[in-house]
Amino acid sequence: MLDCLQEYNIDANIRLLASARSKGKVINDLVVEELTPESFKGVDYVLGACENDVTKKWMPWAQEAGCVVIDNSSAYRLDDNVPLVVPEINPEDIFKHQGIIANPNCSTIIALMALHDIDNLYHINRIICTTFQAVSGAGVKGISDLEREIQDIHAAPEAFQYQIAYNVIPQIGGFDENGITSEEWKMQNEGRKILHSPDLKVSCTCVRVPVWRSHSESIMAECDQEVDLNEIRQALSHSEGVQLKDDPDQLIYPMPILTTNQDDVFVGRLHKDPTDESGKTVSLFCAGDQIRKGAASNAVQILKKLIEKENQA
Amino acid sequence: MLDCLQEYNIDANIRLLASARSKGKVINDLVVEELTPESFKGVDYVLGACENDVTKKWMPWAQEAGCVVIDNSSAYRLDDNVPLVVPEINPEDIFKHQGIIANPNCSTIIALMALHDIDNLYHINRIICTTFQAVSGAGVKGISDLEREIQDIHAAPEAFQYQIAYNVIPQIGGFDENGITSEEWKMQNEGRKILHSPDLKVSCTCVRVPVWRSHSESIMAECDQEVDLNEIRQALSHSEGVQLKDDPDQLIYPMPILTTNQDDVFVGRLHKDPTDESGKTVSLFCAGDQIRKGAASNAVQILKKLIEKENQA
Repeated sequence: MLDCLQEYNIDANIRLLASARSKGKVINDLVVEELTPESFKGVDYVLGACENDVTKKWMPWAQEAGCVVIDNSSAYRLDDNVPLVVPEINPEDIFKHQGIIANPNCSTIIALMALHDIDNLYHINRIICTTFQAVSGAGVKGISDLEREIQDIHAAPEAFQYQIAYNVIPQIGGFDENGITSEEWKMQNEGRKILHSPDLKVSCTCVRVPVWRSHSESIMAECDQEVDLNEIRQALSHSEGVQLKDDPDQLIYPMPILTTNQDDVFVGRLHKDPTDESGKTVSLFCAGDQIRKGAASNAVQILKKLIEKENQA
Repeated sequence: MLDCLQEYNIDANIRLLASARSKGKVINDLVVEELTPESFKGVDYVLGACENDVTKKWMPWAQEAGCVVIDNSSAYRLDDNVPLVVPEINPEDIFKHQGIIANPNCSTIIALMALHDIDNLYHINRIICTTFQAVSGAGVKGISDLEREIQDIHAAPEAFQYQIAYNVIPQIGGFDENGITSEEWKMQNEGRKILHSPDLKVSCTCVRVPVWRSHSESIMAECDQEVDLNEIRQALSHSEGVQLKDDPDQLIYPMPILTTNQDDVFVGRLHKDPTDESGKTVSLFCAGDQIRKGAASNAVQILKKLIEKENQA
């Protein structure tokens, strides 16, 4: 996030707040302060990146101090009073905020970056998605699980349920009574809100894979109208934050290693679903860095829109 | 395959045939002979495991010598005179052979092991599948690519288009004019023949992942009737060659590391597709060792059925 603030030329006095455990650590020449109820006094904008329970604890303090919070947790994403924003998709929602703007789920951001132009063209009514999610999606312990297992395959996992090296794990989040995980519901719940598409249906299977960074997704989108691949390619080639990588004969298609440490979401493997004779279903593969566009960059892009608006006023 | 012959108690004089390059090599105490037009004289059964072009060269010699060939290549799989067999699914087809029996594609075998009971119960009309395919599916060079890249991330790949370590590659096989790969068409073409289901529609996205052995697959199967998950679980729990691993709250679901070096296909993550309100679509995740059940064991199981029938006669 600090890197993104610099790259997006956000000129601000930055303070780092964390728990007492991290107090005094130095990150990019900034000393971490302990977060207390008084911390937010005089602060304009807060970029939140905590677990839900921690976020819920400090949010009232930030609200009390009159801060605008851009929050990465999922605690407030579905609240009616909280805009849920991907700046390339629904920037107008930013300015409806009442003190909190939520940053969406990482896989959801990446999928919707690939899909929102298709939704604009033909209105998507159903999405079927299988994800390939990087270990860094589970934080530093996810990375260290894979690091340690590559050195010693018998190392005990800390972030994941099982060994992730040379394996795939079809569980991200906890299961509901229907056998669907919390992560798998996010794309429908958050996608409806971001696309302003209350009837959107999403069936998602979320799978962890031994990739350091960048989530990939295999997606079928069923639309209300017949799709035209060239029209889709045209739209995606002009889509901000998207790179069309769709020349399979030249071995050009999205892969996680290509998108690591950059903001653009790569989209390719575009073809009509051969099992839908109506021609209304498009199949694609996309990849994006879930730490960048799936989290930090998206939050900083929201902040930049807020600051631009303020400077205009 | 030699291991499988032993495990399945196939008592036979075994000869190993290969190109001149391998002549004289010793495998399991057997000396490799050079394959010539005369090699098949006096041979009853041939287990073929060559590329298509090589297979097409020696097949007439084997036919001339009156051998029954169980062939792992894809050269003859779709021929009308050649049964395509998974012994747990369509064993009766074995005995319609005219000298050649084809062993199906690995991903297809694994998917159909998970699906044939569901097809029997409700008749599947459409399958949507995303695969997670192990490097060993590309042979020894696939394994060595991953081994070398784990040691040195800049090692040049030989089997794959790109680095596979810490990456996923959405290409297996070549692309047709619609942007669909040869591997992605196999599940429909071969599935129709094995299930005797000429109208079956399959949309598949095949992806290589950095896993040593065992392919995993995320599958949605749309049926003619509403599905009953308990009925499916009941059927799968009695299905030969299948292990139901479907207790997600206890972290029990299929994963490739669990099926390595064994014949059974694991099936789990069973749930109704929430986006199909008719209740006719079931979602599942399965994994199976593509070297064992996806190739060698399936061929040896076919051979065993042939020998049993011969002994009965």
